[in-house]
Amino acid sequence: MNDAHVRPVERAIRALTRAFGNRVVTAPAVRAQHANTTTWLPNEPPDAVVYAQSTADVQAIVRICAAERVPVIAFGAGTSLEGHVNAPRGGICIDLKDLNRVLAVHAEDLDCVVEPGVTRKALNEYLRDQGVFFPIDPGADASIGGMTATRASGTNAVRYGTMKDNVLALKAVLANGEIIKTAQRARKSAAGYDLTRLFVGSEGTLGVITEITLRLAGIPEAIAAGTCAFPTVGAACDAAIMTIQSGIPVARIELLDALQVRASNAYSKLSLPEQPMLFLEFHGSSAGVAEQSAQFAEIAREFGGGAFEWAVAAEDRSRLWQARHDAYWAALGLRPGAKSLATDVCVPISRLAECVTATQRDVAECRLVAPIVGHVGDGNFHLSLLIDMNDSDEIARADGLLERLVKRAIAMEGTCTGEHGVGQGKMKYLAAEHGAPALAAMEAIKRALDPQGIMNPGKIVPQDG
Amino acid sequence: MNDAHVRPVERAIRALTRAFGNRVVTAPAVRAQHANTTTWLPNEPPDAVVYAQSTADVQAIVRICAAERVPVIAFGAGTSLEGHVNAPRGGICIDLKDLNRVLAVHAEDLDCVVEPGVTRKALNEYLRDQGVFFPIDPGADASIGGMTATRASGTNAVRYGTMKDNVLALKAVLANGEIIKTAQRARKSAAGYDLTRLFVGSEGTLGVITEITLRLAGIPEAIAAGTCAFPTVGAACDAAIMTIQSGIPVARIELLDALQVRASNAYSKLSLPEQPMLFLEFHGSSAGVAEQSAQFAEIAREFGGGAFEWAVAAEDRSRLWQARHDAYWAALGLRPGAKSLATDVCVPISRLAECVTATQRDVAECRLVAPIVGHVGDGNFHLSLLIDMNDSDEIARADGLLERLVKRAIAMEGTCTGEHGVGQGKMKYLAAEHGAPALAAMEAIKRALDPQGIMNPGKIVPQDG
Repeated sequence: MNDAHVRPVERAIRALTRAFGNRVVTAPAVRAQHANTTTWLPNEPPDAVVYAQSTADVQAIVRICAAERVPVIAFGAGTSLEGHVNAPRGGICIDLKDLNRVLAVHAEDLDCVVEPGVTRKALNEYLRDQGVFFPIDPGADASIGGMTATRASGTNAVRYGTMKDNVLALKAVLANGEIIKTAQRARKSAAGYDLTRLFVGSEGTLGVITEITLRLAGIPEAIAAGTCAFPTVGAACDAAIMTIQSGIPVARIELLDALQVRASNAYSKLSLPEQPMLFLEFHGSSAGVAEQSAQFAEIAREFGGGAFEWAVAAEDRSRLWQARHDAYWAALGLRPGAKSLATDVCVPISRLAECVTATQRDVAECRLVAPIVGHVGDGNFHLSLLIDMNDSDEIARADGLLERLVKRAIAMEGTCTGEHGVGQGKMKYLAAEHGAPALAAMEAIKRALDPQGIMNPGKIVPQDG
Repeated sequence: MNDAHVRPVERAIRALTRAFGNRVVTAPAVRAQHANTTTWLPNEPPDAVVYAQSTADVQAIVRICAAERVPVIAFGAGTSLEGHVNAPRGGICIDLKDLNRVLAVHAEDLDCVVEPGVTRKALNEYLRDQGVFFPIDPGADASIGGMTATRASGTNAVRYGTMKDNVLALKAVLANGEIIKTAQRARKSAAGYDLTRLFVGSEGTLGVITEITLRLAGIPEAIAAGTCAFPTVGAACDAAIMTIQSGIPVARIELLDALQVRASNAYSKLSLPEQPMLFLEFHGSSAGVAEQSAQFAEIAREFGGGAFEWAVAAEDRSRLWQARHDAYWAALGLRPGAKSLATDVCVPISRLAECVTATQRDVAECRLVAPIVGHVGDGNFHLSLLIDMNDSDEIARADGLLERLVKRAIAMEGTCTGEHGVGQGKMKYLAAEHGAPALAAMEAIKRALDPQGIMNPGKIVPQDG
């Protein structure tokens, strides 16, 4: 009876502890680690962290939280950039790292079934000798569950698509504790609402994903990678645009501006000319790869690009892409002690050069340091704002820059985020991007599937708790 | 005041007539034409048909219907096969054929914006001299709106994906009369719930689609098509499976069983050997196409296939694909006077040969006539059951066969429909395929966006009107 005076979250923690023992952790350090750590957003820790080991565990945790109307925040690898795992209203964080089994590989169907805690690198390690691979590669070694929940993308998206194109089906625990499977394993279906795509990118606000069926790709017979320098960012973008428009099935085409090249040279021990640069990769048959790279070389010449510098050996190729994936850390090296605010927008590719160039000008005018990297084949680029968090004027200038960046992208029929997701950081832009009626439709869907508002509240759509 | 004794639908028709004059039609013949006509499902006509000419018209019609709680059924080209446009509860059919403008073509971004009444052939005619094309091709000259609403697919899906992969954004009028735009024109986005994919395949039950932004593909430099005969359906499927698994980027790979070949020979004046047959097409550079077809030829040999018969001239290629698209009509010719019940299922490709073979055996055991064609690269195949609608025993046998076909596909981790959609015909299978909790989630979404149940009621999910 004296339980009535206990806060709901405390009652939930007691019930969870009865069920899960020492897999329930309330130590402040662990809680802080499970809140947002990779941006300038404040760290808002959950009240407790529970380490789940199965879908049934997740179901039991959600049911306990639902009974007490306590928030549930799913946690994968913690690599998100927009505050997705913060707990602004407290609640229970479900750490999914122990749901890390590859449940099935159907190489003949080019798919596999995994638990959400499997990371993309662990998956590719597992698949290594089966002739298939999982192509989606955000820089970090993110978990497949987190990548699904945030509709992640990366350098291969221009050829292989994003998570929306590569999740065939998923299992999720809903706010009401029910377990749904969104689709069968068939490659396509017209059987009802596309719950798969609704959950991909829903950031834990509609349910907790506990199993994912992924498309895989065959390992190409031949891979060729290399770099090509350009006189200006505009020229590099134009070469990328022409490459896409020409239908060259490039697997990766990544822009680094001169500042990022300088940062990556220092961090990754490269010796690239400090000019805007495209990193490219071609996949196909030996003849196909040779043909694609010759076609690209011709386009590069047309836009004043330098020679295409091959990375022939597999180690050189790995080194190149490791450098690309380390761009975030390299950028930090440009200004030790600064915090990096990594953001992204995406525009129709015809507007890319204009958007990147205007953004560079804006950065210069604001006297900020912000290297640019981009998945330019998709029209998607990143800005790493390096901010001295003790300088309130600089913070204010960065804030203004971000607002203008998003406004610029939306005005060009683009989006406030191509791949980082909404989380807390981009919520304020959704009305401008989608309009009030579409946002109201999202809110109606959220209320329909989570009437108590317990699933990762305070993310994507506003909702009273 | 005596209006109170008038049925709601009559009040709606009066209001519509005040607004739209003779664009409101209640003639029985027109109403019957706007109900389902292409299956054995009974024709259930709407109470009136309104010819809309703009999104604003659609909004006005939906608002009038919402005020009277009268059903709204969107109508494109009327080519659907599962009763999607029937009006089991009466109501107002919105005919969208006059919303037939191509609003923009952005060849440089490989996209375009169209109204829903544009048909796929009209669109490709329009795009012809711009170096781009729209690849999705269900057999019929369906409207883009209908194709979007039913998540249509077709012969090119193995290479270019389905409507879910090729709709970038859409505009829709919701049940509350609000107009939403689901996404920007950027190629990818992580900005909130994927309303685009939720509406693709929603069959008019969540709103009426009034504008669609489509991905386009560059017209390939070279195209090669041809046919290849196989000793058995199993061998043809195995060759298709191996082709996909080998990563050959085949653009089309279509199966016709021996019976369908006989039908198509007669209907389309071909002279193919009456054996299971693959129709194929390769897209790419000249060298790439040559390489792909050589690789396929090797696979075909391995599975006892005959020589690959080229259709080199563009006319021969058109004739071949016209024959494939006319398979439905050709099948009818096998049994004049019969009704064709065209159905489809889709399974993981590794199970395809087994599923097709078991289905053929079942057809024979039921003493039915049912040629098979299939988009075998996707694991998707069609059965055209030719039924004497005066023979109740035959109808019962066909019914039983369909049940078993769906059960077989689902047991193989497949779906009750790869591309035809749910409509009325496949509603009864959704619980078996998705399970009660997932179906309940679909119902919750339907109620959230259409609380009065006026948008195409009696399709996909059960809901009280």
